[in-house]
Amino acid sequence: MSALPVAPPAGSGIAYVDGAFVPMEQATISVLDYGFTRSDVTYDVVHVWSGGFFRLDHHLDRFLRSLGELRMDIGMDRAGLRRVLIECVRRTGLREAYVAMLCTRGRPPVGSRDLRLARNRFIAYAIPFVWIGGREGQKDGLSAVIGSFRRIPPESVDPTVKNYHWLDMERGQFEAYDRGADTAILLGMDGNVTEGPGFNVFAVFGERIATPDRGVLEGITRQTVIDICRERGLPLDVGPIPGERFREADEIFLTSTAGGIVPLVRLDDRILYNGVPGPTTLRVRDLYWQRHDDPSERTPIDYGA
Amino acid sequence: MSALPVAPPAGSGIAYVDGAFVPMEQATISVLDYGFTRSDVTYDVVHVWSGGFFRLDHHLDRFLRSLGELRMDIGMDRAGLRRVLIECVRRTGLREAYVAMLCTRGRPPVGSRDLRLARNRFIAYAIPFVWIGGREGQKDGLSAVIGSFRRIPPESVDPTVKNYHWLDMERGQFEAYDRGADTAILLGMDGNVTEGPGFNVFAVFGERIATPDRGVLEGITRQTVIDICRERGLPLDVGPIPGERFREADEIFLTSTAGGIVPLVRLDDRILYNGVPGPTTLRVRDLYWQRHDDPSERTPIDYGA
Repeated sequence: MSALPVAPPAGSGIAYVDGAFVPMEQATISVLDYGFTRSDVTYDVVHVWSGGFFRLDHHLDRFLRSLGELRMDIGMDRAGLRRVLIECVRRTGLREAYVAMLCTRGRPPVGSRDLRLARNRFIAYAIPFVWIGGREGQKDGLSAVIGSFRRIPPESVDPTVKNYHWLDMERGQFEAYDRGADTAILLGMDGNVTEGPGFNVFAVFGERIATPDRGVLEGITRQTVIDICRERGLPLDVGPIPGERFREADEIFLTSTAGGIVPLVRLDDRILYNGVPGPTTLRVRDLYWQRHDDPSERTPIDYGA
Repeated sequence: MSALPVAPPAGSGIAYVDGAFVPMEQATISVLDYGFTRSDVTYDVVHVWSGGFFRLDHHLDRFLRSLGELRMDIGMDRAGLRRVLIECVRRTGLREAYVAMLCTRGRPPVGSRDLRLARNRFIAYAIPFVWIGGREGQKDGLSAVIGSFRRIPPESVDPTVKNYHWLDMERGQFEAYDRGADTAILLGMDGNVTEGPGFNVFAVFGERIATPDRGVLEGITRQTVIDICRERGLPLDVGPIPGERFREADEIFLTSTAGGIVPLVRLDDRILYNGVPGPTTLRVRDLYWQRHDDPSERTPIDYGA
């Protein structure tokens, strides 16, 4: 792990693979890795804004907890993990970045299928910041449909262990395209709202803000909104939101590391708030971005000379 | 696609990637491929026995149907796909092989997240034949537990589109290790038996053979057993098997392309049939392997000089 500054490669990224920092295109896994053939993998994504990580420790906490749940070993401690992530960003030179850490089950020795013998594989990378729905969607709002597939239930796959089980959301995304919308939101098996591809969901009913408590990823951006509501005294309900009630929300916004707070201006055939982002959404979005200047939430990166 | 014979690499395999036949270790995907980060991928596996594919057309039918469901394009027709699979095996020289074909969503252009713009990626490979539970397990029988996670329901992910959404089964597999068993069988959200990691499940109650009808992969080996039962007049029930009833089965066997018919001799703490494979299981296993000699089921491979 050299500390020498490296010129950023245009429009790509830097990955940490098998102990070395390499161009993003070299970050690959075997098609025999159980992280692929069984989606036996966990990951996390943190963003860098204005040259600093936002809430890095929240992401490290979650990733380390997920690794424990899946009995995986990345071969380094928390401090080592932190150093790798910082170094990935530093080498890209990116001031705004999307930084991923992941661990796959790997492959058991030839002839074995024993998961306990698999050598787990840790990979990290930093690439340019990603916006859900693009920058325009972030500003003007997105449209969504409620997909016909139900979100994989927590009885099957624990959503608090961040995972790549997304085929239900991918099918929903195609339904969105077919219906002229940008993205999809899925209900759970119980008919309550869950999440969508890469985001948590919030709804505003009058003065109150609501978000589901179950069957969803415990997103860090979601948590930030919860923290903002509590600190500012905004009335918040963390609990089940039946699909029928959700369809009648005054405002809806999505939260994601990839873009922050994203307004929704249409749900199925219903126009929300005259087709523009609502006042509560805009207030939360402003508070979310303001928070990026708070030194206690930032881990600044020393990019060197 | 050269027709020149190639010496088989010891203990590995041959893959077809981006239009070329390469050593297995070169069969990789980017960690940015949606086939990995969203498990947006479908696949199939066919086996080669004594130098011939078994039921190749059944597998091609299923794979092509799965591709259609996920709106993926492998860039070749059925005849081309067949030629690639045969050539993979021929180049390994393997007379017994496990042959996979898969297609990932791929990656959208830089800056986009539009699934419709992704270039789908087709990969195929042939490796040495794989036995679930090893050869000893195949002969003497395996032990299984009923896992505590529920199989991902068909309302979330359609199990008839063969997919890599296995984290529920991986967690079950660790439960099996903890309880001194070889593998795990999962119930569905409705409490009925579904499947396990890489296999379908059959139970024998007196004279009758039963297998679930819903929430399971429509396995080709499962279908072969169904065909055998119908042709031989063995009483067969394809329908729901409640977990409680399943626990009282006289015999249980697993079916998989990776090993055929695998007896179960213990379920949780219950010893089945005095701990040896039962007579119905053995009869079905014999009929399954006899069927490999039937020319109408075989696609022989010309290995050349």
